Amino acid sequence: MEPRREFVLIEMLEKIFAPSSGKVKLGIGDDAAVVDCKPGNKVFSTDTLVEDVHFNRAFHPPRLLGNKAIAVNVSDINAMGGEAEFALLAMAIPQTTGDDYLEKIGQGIAEGCRQYGLEIIGGDITRSPGPFFINIMIWGSVKKYATRSGAKPGDDIWVTGFLGDSHAGWLWLSGEADETELELIKNEVKENRLNEKIFFLAKANINPKVCSKAGPLVAPLVNSMIDVSDGLSNDLGHICTASNVGAEINLDLLPLSPALKWWAKNRGKDPRKIALAGGEDYQLLFSAPPERESEIRSVFDSLKVKCSKIGKIKEKTRGIKFFDKKGYQPVEVEGWDHFA
Amino acid sequence: MEPRREFVLIEMLEKIFAPSSGKVKLGIGDDAAVVDCKPGNKVFSTDTLVEDVHFNRAFHPPRLLGNKAIAVNVSDINAMGGEAEFALLAMAIPQTTGDDYLEKIGQGIAEGCRQYGLEIIGGDITRSPGPFFINIMIWGSVKKYATRSGAKPGDDIWVTGFLGDSHAGWLWLSGEADETELELIKNEVKENRLNEKIFFLAKANINPKVCSKAGPLVAPLVNSMIDVSDGLSNDLGHICTASNVGAEINLDLLPLSPALKWWAKNRGKDPRKIALAGGEDYQLLFSAPPERESEIRSVFDSLKVKCSKIGKIKEKTRGIKFFDKKGYQPVEVEGWDHFA
Repeated sequence: MEPRREFVLIEMLEKIFAPSSGKVKLGIGDDAAVVDCKPGNKVFSTDTLVEDVHFNRAFHPPRLLGNKAIAVNVSDINAMGGEAEFALLAMAIPQTTGDDYLEKIGQGIAEGCRQYGLEIIGGDITRSPGPFFINIMIWGSVKKYATRSGAKPGDDIWVTGFLGDSHAGWLWLSGEADETELELIKNEVKENRLNEKIFFLAKANINPKVCSKAGPLVAPLVNSMIDVSDGLSNDLGHICTASNVGAEINLDLLPLSPALKWWAKNRGKDPRKIALAGGEDYQLLFSAPPERESEIRSVFDSLKVKCSKIGKIKEKTRGIKFFDKKGYQPVEVEGWDHFA
Repeated sequence: MEPRREFVLIEMLEKIFAPSSGKVKLGIGDDAAVVDCKPGNKVFSTDTLVEDVHFNRAFHPPRLLGNKAIAVNVSDINAMGGEAEFALLAMAIPQTTGDDYLEKIGQGIAEGCRQYGLEIIGGDITRSPGPFFINIMIWGSVKKYATRSGAKPGDDIWVTGFLGDSHAGWLWLSGEADETELELIKNEVKENRLNEKIFFLAKANINPKVCSKAGPLVAPLVNSMIDVSDGLSNDLGHICTASNVGAEINLDLLPLSPALKWWAKNRGKDPRKIALAGGEDYQLLFSAPPERESEIRSVFDSLKVKCSKIGKIKEKTRGIKFFDKKGYQPVEVEGWDHFA
């Protein structure tokens, strides 16, 4: 973009992202930000949202898009058992994108930061000759960190919240919804002006919430943990590959929302398949020794967050299997290396 | 991109970016990386290279592109007086881009990391439906940090290296060069197969080198510092705005390479204008009290790096002025707020 516009946008964002914690010595506006760090384990991650890959401007309200850019990154830090503290924002912006749209994205990012207790301390803005590109780099502190690689045969497998809502919401938004419905979504309507269940699913996709208190509390109790962003089956595959184990999931125990069940039933689909394969759930998937069950339940009870025990970690030679009351069911698992 | 390809690429990059320092507790392959941080000031920055904005695949060898992605980020940390230690890499990749191209970019990034003493500890890979995006987030440690905002009237203005070579190189690469010449550049030929001066200019653009030892050494001696990435006149404007001062630059003292002078003369252009307006020099621009001159000279002498005194910081009311032996010359300064 023209330098002049870049500078105007940086100034606008500088106001939106005014520092709040007092931990930042030098924020936006210099070649780099300076933070006085306490010693200890720091945890770093980055996640990108690309237009027409991860979001569609036609129905993603910019404020919620900004919020989601923060949420998906917080989800990674949370899955390590960490607490997010700071972030950098890099955006590549199509020239046709107006300042008001960018301001709303900025406000959504700032809102996400307040919600999850972190601060934007710097970034980079440039022109894109193609899609809009929003990248967040996030970091924070962690005491006891959880990894993908610690799962042990005999562990219970747990997952938080509901699965598949986001994917169903995406399918609805990008296919079935009519223009009036998309306009309602874009105006961030209250659910009483749109089918309540549809709104629930769409919201799961465009405005995911991360329970960022759960990660640090549960991390000391688990053997392995990951956030569900590629779909439960794939993310379970990541844990199994990294931990060199197999797993068994009881499909009848998958946490399915009433909205997803209703949506799938109306379309003759199996909601469990959507729950397994659909991504962007931003829930925690973890394995823990059975003797941790009561501590785990009390963590999630205290947070009022749903947490379901859905299976068991097995020896690697047993593979990754999915069953229900009718027996074993074929499920494709991406990313799991059967031969490693 | 398809999850499967993402995982294959991550595995490839994991090998290329094998950790080396022993400071990383958990690197690529989990939801986030974990580093055991020593206490003190940490410095954070991010910079993005977008295809067809910052680079052109037709003549930018991927290995050098990867190296440049690191160099431009190191330049920001250097301009703060910091030492880069770690980085995250986020890439959005067009589906037509082959694995071999990505491998070469990865190798260039790894080479840049070795050159500047840092490590890639994580990142994000996704599909782009448009141009290639390479984003690096970088951080490190800093003792005495320099900012844009400390310049004081009476300071000398200094700049390292030569100015304008990169911009002239870009003009040549994107306009005048014929296909055979671009092919030679793409094959990273030695200068003896291409006009030596042209090769010098093209290299300044596609393979910039940052003197990363200079920043930490000179930072304690300066009142303000910035890296020259938007062009000298604009970056001087940033210092003047942030410091609330004016400046005077003697155009006859601008450091111009023999290659730039030759190139400009052949085209009837003023090389000083290219030096002022052209960006991507990745040199240090700083201001310091006159009594620091001998210390500054001895820093750059010891590093065998060219450093030129080109002007003076003035009161804000005097504005930003450029003169030569014929008197004051009009130069546009972007980003300087004349009315703030």
